[in-house]
Amino acid sequence: MKLVAVGTMAFDSLETPFGKAEKIVGGAATYIGISASYFTKSTHLVSVIGDDFPGSFLSTLKNRSINLEGVELKKGEKSFFWSGKYHNDMNTRDTLDTQLNVLENFTPVVPEQARNAEFLMLGNLTPSVQSSVIDQMTERPKLIVLDTMNFWMDIALDELKQVLKRVDVLSINDEEARQLSGDYSLLKAAKTIMNMGPKHLIIKKGEHGALLFSSNEVFFAPALPLEEVFDPTGAGDTFAGGFIGYLAATGDISFENMKRAIIYGSAMASFCVEKFGTDRILQLDHEQIEARVHQFIDLTSVEISF
Amino acid sequence: MKLVAVGTMAFDSLETPFGKAEKIVGGAATYIGISASYFTKSTHLVSVIGDDFPGSFLSTLKNRSINLEGVELKKGEKSFFWSGKYHNDMNTRDTLDTQLNVLENFTPVVPEQARNAEFLMLGNLTPSVQSSVIDQMTERPKLIVLDTMNFWMDIALDELKQVLKRVDVLSINDEEARQLSGDYSLLKAAKTIMNMGPKHLIIKKGEHGALLFSSNEVFFAPALPLEEVFDPTGAGDTFAGGFIGYLAATGDISFENMKRAIIYGSAMASFCVEKFGTDRILQLDHEQIEARVHQFIDLTSVEISF
Repeated sequence: MKLVAVGTMAFDSLETPFGKAEKIVGGAATYIGISASYFTKSTHLVSVIGDDFPGSFLSTLKNRSINLEGVELKKGEKSFFWSGKYHNDMNTRDTLDTQLNVLENFTPVVPEQARNAEFLMLGNLTPSVQSSVIDQMTERPKLIVLDTMNFWMDIALDELKQVLKRVDVLSINDEEARQLSGDYSLLKAAKTIMNMGPKHLIIKKGEHGALLFSSNEVFFAPALPLEEVFDPTGAGDTFAGGFIGYLAATGDISFENMKRAIIYGSAMASFCVEKFGTDRILQLDHEQIEARVHQFIDLTSVEISF
Repeated sequence: MKLVAVGTMAFDSLETPFGKAEKIVGGAATYIGISASYFTKSTHLVSVIGDDFPGSFLSTLKNRSINLEGVELKKGEKSFFWSGKYHNDMNTRDTLDTQLNVLENFTPVVPEQARNAEFLMLGNLTPSVQSSVIDQMTERPKLIVLDTMNFWMDIALDELKQVLKRVDVLSINDEEARQLSGDYSLLKAAKTIMNMGPKHLIIKKGEHGALLFSSNEVFFAPALPLEEVFDPTGAGDTFAGGFIGYLAATGDISFENMKRAIIYGSAMASFCVEKFGTDRILQLDHEQIEARVHQFIDLTSVEISF
């Protein structure tokens, strides 16, 4: 089924304990699009770039059957730029520089042919911009997934709460779930947040895995213990891309299938962190992905007879 | 099979965000013994108490078929006392007071009839004291599990390394695994630590679950998302008691069975934190434990066909 993913396409400069990468291609839509492309060939990206964005990278995306009609090119302007440095534990980072550039006046336009998409992934952006994308859909998508961050909870909480009423799945990390709900217990936080609108909540816990909640069910996907986390940038978006890509490919939004989608998303994210930027997730094949999914299943597999 | 568990029997005064408990019975051996008693009726505790230790609590333990012959009563002396206050996140705590009392010159003596036990649980104590218990066993136990903490890594690392060479399973938390190994990645830390002696390593991650490592296998047991963690005191020892109690009851120390034991230990620990001290784990029945184990299994259960 058709998938629309909205988000940034950007340059990142990163410093991790393992090294530095200067001005490499990043952005939520980039990671989501690449990750989803392993599952579905009907992905439409909606984003904005400046004319500094490398044409070769656009070709790479097109070669993966990612439709870029919705990516606006602003001549004479620069692409969004973010620079950050990770601490030794890789769970926290400092933002060194943010240059909005083309993002400052980003008004996403969903291409005509994509407005009837059954699956909509709203990457992290101003909540009102996320809302404006939903407005453009000619039919209510079968599933809308929204990613956001603490920044919007700090400065645009009311707008965020408005858009939350319109989505099916919210994807945030544990600290954000606690901030948004005011509850420390993630079980309580999940109940509070699902009362705000989303029928499902994904709480990402980084190296500690991810939780999927619905009104009366909960599922936990572990994170794979890795020798080295090289660069966590984009892991959350890669997870989201794998999650919604798997759902769009199967067309099944039952809780059971969302559990599978969480595992596929987690597997994709576990690849993402192994190299800088998109390097690793551009080099995968289905065999590698299936093998990784097997590792996730094996990790918690236990037979108990009562 | 016979199980010997060595550790403290003590008084704790606790403050958590949910309330205070003054001078309640605690201690590693207490929690281990109670937890193990749901699985095996051949547990021998080795510990030391003062004459302030309540006889009614000793009766409670005896009524659970826990053998207390190895618990030395020091007349005219006071039991070990610890007082602590938990922070809001319940993962960190401040020690307010520690009174060693009877523990100062504790020389554990394993009763004659328990020296051929097949299972030995060494609760957190001075490493040299843990070693002295192994020396007393007439036959090398089938399985020796050791619990320790960062305190001994700080002040008695050499002694700790000596006893590590003599045990089969080490049980520590994630920060302790990082400190002991010098590795940040838990996968690397596990390899480093298993090179120090133990064939298996359990890394406890509190609300994030637990990992079990052997030379070529890894298993992850999630933690159950709970509405409220009331008091985490004793959770690690309750986990250890359930783990080794299950193994002693089944007599099977294969990796597959250790996985089951980890789930049973996790289930016991999830009860422990629901009330102050030993209140909750003294009130369980087998039906409740099996139901909780089912919840753990369901939490990560997913069917994927390739």
